Amino acid sequence: MFLEIEQTSPIAIYTQLTSQIKKAIVKETLVAGDDLPSVRVLASDLGVNMHTVNKAYNILTEEGLLLKSKKGYVVSPKINRQTDEEQEDEMKKRLEDVLVDILVHNHSEKTVQEWLSELTVALRKGDN
Amino acid sequence: MFLEIEQTSPIAIYTQLTSQIKKAIVKETLVAGDDLPSVRVLASDLGVNMHTVNKAYNILTEEGLLLKSKKGYVVSPKINRQTDEEQEDEMKKRLEDVLVDILVHNHSEKTVQEWLSELTVALRKGDN
Repeated sequence: MFLEIEQTSPIAIYTQLTSQIKKAIVKETLVAGDDLPSVRVLASDLGVNMHTVNKAYNILTEEGLLLKSKKGYVVSPKINRQTDEEQEDEMKKRLEDVLVDILVHNHSEKTVQEWLSELTVALRKGDN
Repeated sequence: MFLEIEQTSPIAIYTQLTSQIKKAIVKETLVAGDDLPSVRVLASDLGVNMHTVNKAYNILTEEGLLLKSKKGYVVSPKINRQTDEEQEDEMKKRLEDVLVDILVHNHSEKTVQEWLSELTVALRKGDN
Protein backbone atom coordinates (compact mmCIF):
# COMPACT_ATOMS: atom_id res chain seq x y z
CA MET A 1 0.00 0.00 0.00
CA PHE A 2 1.36 3.42 -0.96
CA LEU A 3 -0.24 5.25 1.98
CA GLU A 4 1.63 5.84 5.19
CA ILE A 5 0.47 7.75 8.21
CA GLU A 6 2.71 9.60 10.63
CA GLN A 7 0.74 9.46 13.84
CA THR A 8 3.08 11.97 15.51
CA SER A 9 2.96 14.53 12.68
CA PRO A 10 1.32 17.90 13.42
CA ILE A 11 -0.51 17.47 10.09
CA ALA A 12 -4.05 16.09 10.51
CA ILE A 13 -4.35 12.46 9.39
CA TYR A 14 -7.09 13.18 6.84
CA THR A 15 -4.81 15.85 5.33
CA GLN A 16 -1.95 13.35 5.15
CA LEU A 17 -4.31 10.99 3.35
CA THR A 18 -5.66 13.55 0.86
CA SER A 19 -2.21 14.81 0.00
CA GLN A 20 -0.75 11.31 -0.46
CA ILE A 21 -3.62 10.27 -2.70
CA LYS A 22 -3.22 13.47 -4.75
CA LYS A 23 0.50 12.76 -5.08
CA ALA A 24 -0.24 9.19 -6.22
CA ILE A 25 -2.58 10.54 -8.90
CA VAL A 26 0.05 13.04 -10.12
CA LYS A 27 2.68 10.27 -10.17
CA GLU A 28 0.17 8.02 -11.96
CA THR A 29 0.55 5.34 -9.31
CA LEU A 30 -3.23 5.75 -9.32
CA VAL A 31 -4.89 6.30 -12.70
CA ALA A 32 -8.44 7.01 -13.86
CA GLY A 33 -10.73 4.12 -12.99
CA ASP A 34 -8.50 2.62 -10.28
CA ASP A 35 -10.35 1.47 -7.18
CA LEU A 36 -9.45 2.92 -3.81
CA PRO A 37 -9.43 0.55 -0.83
CA SER A 38 -12.77 0.53 0.98
CA VAL A 39 -13.10 2.90 3.92
CA ARG A 40 -13.23 -0.05 6.33
CA VAL A 41 -10.15 -1.78 4.91
CA LEU A 42 -8.03 1.36 4.69
CA ALA A 43 -8.97 2.47 8.21
CA SER A 44 -8.06 -0.94 9.54
CA ASP A 45 -4.79 -1.16 7.52
CA LEU A 46 -3.63 2.25 8.71
CA GLY A 47 -4.98 1.90 12.23
CA VAL A 48 -7.07 5.06 11.96
CA ASN A 49 -10.72 5.87 12.51
CA MET A 50 -13.18 5.16 9.67
CA HIS A 51 -14.42 8.77 9.97
CA THR A 52 -10.93 9.97 9.10
CA VAL A 53 -10.79 7.93 5.90
CA ASN A 54 -14.35 8.99 5.05
CA LYS A 55 -13.43 12.65 5.50
CA ALA A 56 -10.41 12.30 3.19
CA TYR A 57 -12.42 10.46 0.51
CA ASN A 58 -15.23 13.01 0.72
CA ILE A 59 -12.86 15.93 0.26
CA LEU A 60 -11.26 14.26 -2.75
CA THR A 61 -14.70 13.50 -4.19
CA GLU A 62 -15.78 17.13 -3.76
CA GLU A 63 -12.62 18.20 -5.54
CA GLY A 64 -13.56 15.92 -8.44
CA LEU A 65 -10.56 13.63 -7.93
CA LEU A 66 -12.54 10.56 -6.82
CA LEU A 67 -15.94 9.27 -7.89
CA LYS A 68 -18.22 7.43 -5.52
CA SER A 69 -20.00 4.43 -7.00
CA LYS A 70 -22.00 1.59 -5.48
CA LYS A 71 -18.82 -0.47 -5.35
CA GLY A 72 -16.79 2.23 -3.64
CA TYR A 73 -14.45 5.04 -4.58
CA VAL A 74 -12.55 5.16 -7.89
CA VAL A 75 -10.14 7.69 -9.40
CA SER A 76 -11.95 10.18 -11.67
CA PRO A 77 -11.05 10.63 -15.30
CA LYS A 78 -9.03 13.78 -15.99
CA ILE A 79 -12.06 15.56 -17.40
CA ASN A 80 -13.63 15.65 -13.92
CA ARG A 81 -10.61 17.19 -12.32
CA GLN A 82 -10.85 20.52 -14.05
CA THR A 83 -11.06 23.68 -12.00
CA ASP A 84 -13.18 26.78 -12.37
CA GLU A 85 -11.91 30.34 -12.17
CA GLU A 86 -12.55 30.62 -8.45
CA GLN A 87 -10.51 27.48 -7.71
CA GLU A 88 -7.71 28.73 -9.95
CA ASP A 89 -7.64 32.05 -8.11
CA GLU A 90 -7.40 30.14 -4.84
CA MET A 91 -4.50 28.05 -6.17
CA LYS A 92 -2.71 31.16 -7.40
CA LYS A 93 -3.23 32.74 -3.99
CA ARG A 94 -1.63 29.70 -2.31
CA LEU A 95 1.23 29.74 -4.80
CA GLU A 96 1.70 33.45 -4.12
CA ASP A 97 1.79 32.88 -0.35
CA VAL A 98 4.55 30.29 -0.69
CA LEU A 99 6.41 32.43 -3.22
CA VAL A 100 6.31 35.50 -0.93
CA ASP A 101 7.54 33.39 1.97
CA ILE A 102 10.44 32.03 -0.06
CA LEU A 103 11.43 35.43 -1.46
CA VAL A 104 11.10 37.30 1.85
CA HIS A 105 13.55 34.85 3.39
CA ASN A 106 16.23 35.93 0.99
CA HIS A 107 15.85 33.22 -1.58
CA SER A 108 15.96 34.37 -5.18
CA GLU A 109 13.54 33.62 -7.98
CA LYS A 110 16.25 31.31 -9.30
CA THR A 111 16.02 29.23 -6.13
CA VAL A 112 12.24 28.98 -6.54
CA GLN A 113 12.77 27.73 -10.10
CA GLU A 114 15.38 25.21 -8.96
CA TRP A 115 13.15 23.88 -6.19
CA LEU A 116 10.24 23.59 -8.59
CA SER A 117 12.28 21.64 -11.15
CA GLU A 118 13.60 19.37 -8.40
CA LEU A 119 10.07 18.71 -7.12
CA THR A 120 8.64 18.20 -10.60
CA VAL A 121 11.37 15.73 -11.56
CA ALA A 122 10.78 13.78 -8.34
CA LEU A 123 7.02 13.70 -8.97
CA ARG A 124 7.47 12.57 -12.55
CA LYS A 125 10.07 9.94 -11.70
CA GLY A 126 7.68 8.38 -9.24
CA ASP A 127 9.92 8.99 -6.23
CA ASN A 128 8.32 9.41 -2.86
CA MET B 1 -1.31 52.68 5.12
CA PHE B 2 -0.58 49.56 3.04
CA LEU B 3 -2.39 47.15 5.37
CA GLU B 4 -6.00 46.25 4.86
CA ILE B 5 -8.05 43.75 6.80
CA GLU B 6 -10.97 41.79 5.46
CA GLN B 7 -13.08 41.21 8.52
CA THR B 8 -15.28 38.70 6.67
CA SER B 9 -12.40 36.63 5.26
CA PRO B 10 -12.02 33.03 6.49
CA ILE B 11 -8.29 33.83 6.90
CA ALA B 12 -7.36 34.75 10.48
CA ILE B 13 -6.62 38.45 10.89
CA TYR B 14 -3.10 37.88 12.25
CA THR B 15 -2.40 35.75 9.16
CA GLN B 16 -3.68 38.51 6.91
CA LEU B 17 -1.33 40.88 8.71
CA THR B 18 1.75 38.64 8.54
CA SER B 19 1.23 37.89 4.87
CA GLN B 20 0.66 41.54 3.93
CA ILE B 21 3.76 42.64 5.82
CA LYS B 22 5.80 39.88 4.12
CA LYS B 23 4.48 41.01 0.74
CA ALA B 24 5.42 44.62 1.53
CA ILE B 25 8.98 43.48 2.37
CA VAL B 26 9.24 41.50 -0.89
CA LYS B 27 7.91 44.48 -2.85
CA GLU B 28 10.34 46.73 -0.93
CA THR B 29 7.49 48.97 0.20
CA LEU B 30 9.11 48.18 3.54
CA VAL B 31 12.90 48.04 3.61
CA ALA B 32 15.48 47.17 6.27
CA GLY B 33 15.35 49.63 9.14
CA ASP B 34 11.81 50.88 8.43
CA ASP B 35 9.66 51.32 11.52
CA LEU B 36 6.39 49.42 11.80
CA PRO B 37 3.44 51.29 13.33
CA SER B 38 3.18 50.67 17.07
CA VAL B 39 0.91 47.83 18.15
CA ARG B 40 -1.52 50.32 19.69
CA VAL B 41 -1.69 52.57 16.63
CA LEU B 42 -2.05 49.73 14.12
CA ALA B 43 -4.72 47.98 16.17
CA SER B 44 -6.67 51.20 16.43
CA ASP B 45 -6.22 52.08 12.71
CA LEU B 46 -7.42 48.66 11.60
CA GLY B 47 -10.09 48.29 14.26
CA VAL B 48 -8.61 45.03 15.53
CA ASN B 49 -7.51 43.77 18.92
CA MET B 50 -4.02 44.68 20.15
CA HIS B 51 -3.37 40.96 20.81
CA THR B 52 -3.91 40.27 17.11
CA VAL B 53 -1.28 42.82 16.06
CA ASN B 54 1.07 41.55 18.77
CA LYS B 55 0.67 37.99 17.54
CA ALA B 56 1.48 39.00 13.96
CA TYR B 57 4.52 41.06 15.00
CA ASN B 58 5.78 38.22 17.23
CA ILE B 59 5.52 35.66 14.43
CA LEU B 60 7.41 37.95 12.05
CA THR B 61 10.05 38.58 14.72
CA GLU B 62 10.49 34.86 15.30
CA GLU B 63 10.92 34.40 11.55
CA GLY B 64 13.68 37.02 11.61
CA LEU B 65 11.73 39.47 9.49
CA LEU B 66 11.22 42.11 12.18
CA LEU B 67 13.45 43.22 15.05
CA LYS B 68 12.05 44.39 18.33
CA SER B 69 13.82 47.41 19.84
CA LYS B 70 12.96 49.74 22.70
CA LYS B 71 11.31 52.06 20.20
CA GLY B 72 9.20 49.34 18.60
CA TYR B 73 9.40 46.97 15.67
CA VAL B 74 11.61 47.57 12.64
CA VAL B 75 12.24 45.60 9.45
CA SER B 76 15.30 43.34 9.80
CA PRO B 77 18.26 43.58 7.47
CA LYS B 78 18.41 40.80 4.87
CA ILE B 79 21.11 38.98 6.79
CA ASN B 80 18.62 38.16 9.56
CA ARG B 81 16.09 36.69 7.22
CA GLN B 82 18.10 33.67 6.22
CA THR B 83 16.68 30.22 6.71
CA ASP B 84 18.20 27.01 7.99
CA GLU B 85 17.88 23.62 6.36
CA GLU B 86 14.81 22.67 8.36
CA GLN B 87 12.97 25.84 7.32
CA GLU B 88 13.97 25.27 3.70
CA ASP B 89 12.61 21.73 3.83
CA GLU B 90 9.36 23.09 5.22
CA MET B 91 9.16 25.66 2.40
CA LYS B 92 9.84 22.98 -0.21
CA LYS B 93 7.13 20.85 1.37
CA ARG B 94 4.63 23.72 1.07
CA LEU B 95 5.71 24.36 -2.50
CA GLU B 96 5.28 20.67 -3.27
CA ASP B 97 1.78 20.63 -1.76
CA VAL B 98 0.67 23.52 -3.98
CA LEU B 99 2.41 22.01 -7.01
CA VAL B 100 0.70 18.63 -6.51
CA ASP B 101 -2.65 20.37 -6.13
CA ILE B 102 -2.15 22.33 -9.33
CA LEU B 103 -0.95 19.31 -11.34
CA VAL B 104 -3.62 16.93 -10.02
CA HIS B 105 -6.29 19.33 -11.23
CA ASN B 106 -5.12 18.94 -14.80
CA HIS B 107 -2.91 21.97 -15.03
CA SER B 108 0.42 21.44 -16.73
CA GLU B 109 3.89 22.37 -15.53
CA LYS B 110 3.72 25.13 -18.14
CA THR B 111 0.72 26.64 -16.33
CA VAL B 112 2.64 26.55 -13.04
CA GLN B 113 5.51 28.40 -14.73
CA GLU B 114 3.14 30.96 -16.23
CA TRP B 115 1.41 31.59 -12.91
CA LEU B 116 4.77 31.97 -11.19
CA SER B 117 6.03 34.50 -13.75
CA GLU B 118 2.76 36.41 -13.47
CA LEU B 119 3.00 36.48 -9.67
CA THR B 120 6.69 37.39 -9.67
CA VAL B 121 6.17 40.25 -12.12
CA ALA B 122 3.28 41.59 -10.01
CA LEU B 123 5.41 41.38 -6.84
CA ARG B 124 8.36 43.11 -8.48
CA LYS B 125 6.23 45.83 -10.06
CA GLY B 126 4.84 46.72 -6.69
CA ASP B 127 1.24 45.90 -7.61
CA ASN B 128 -1.13 44.85 -4.91
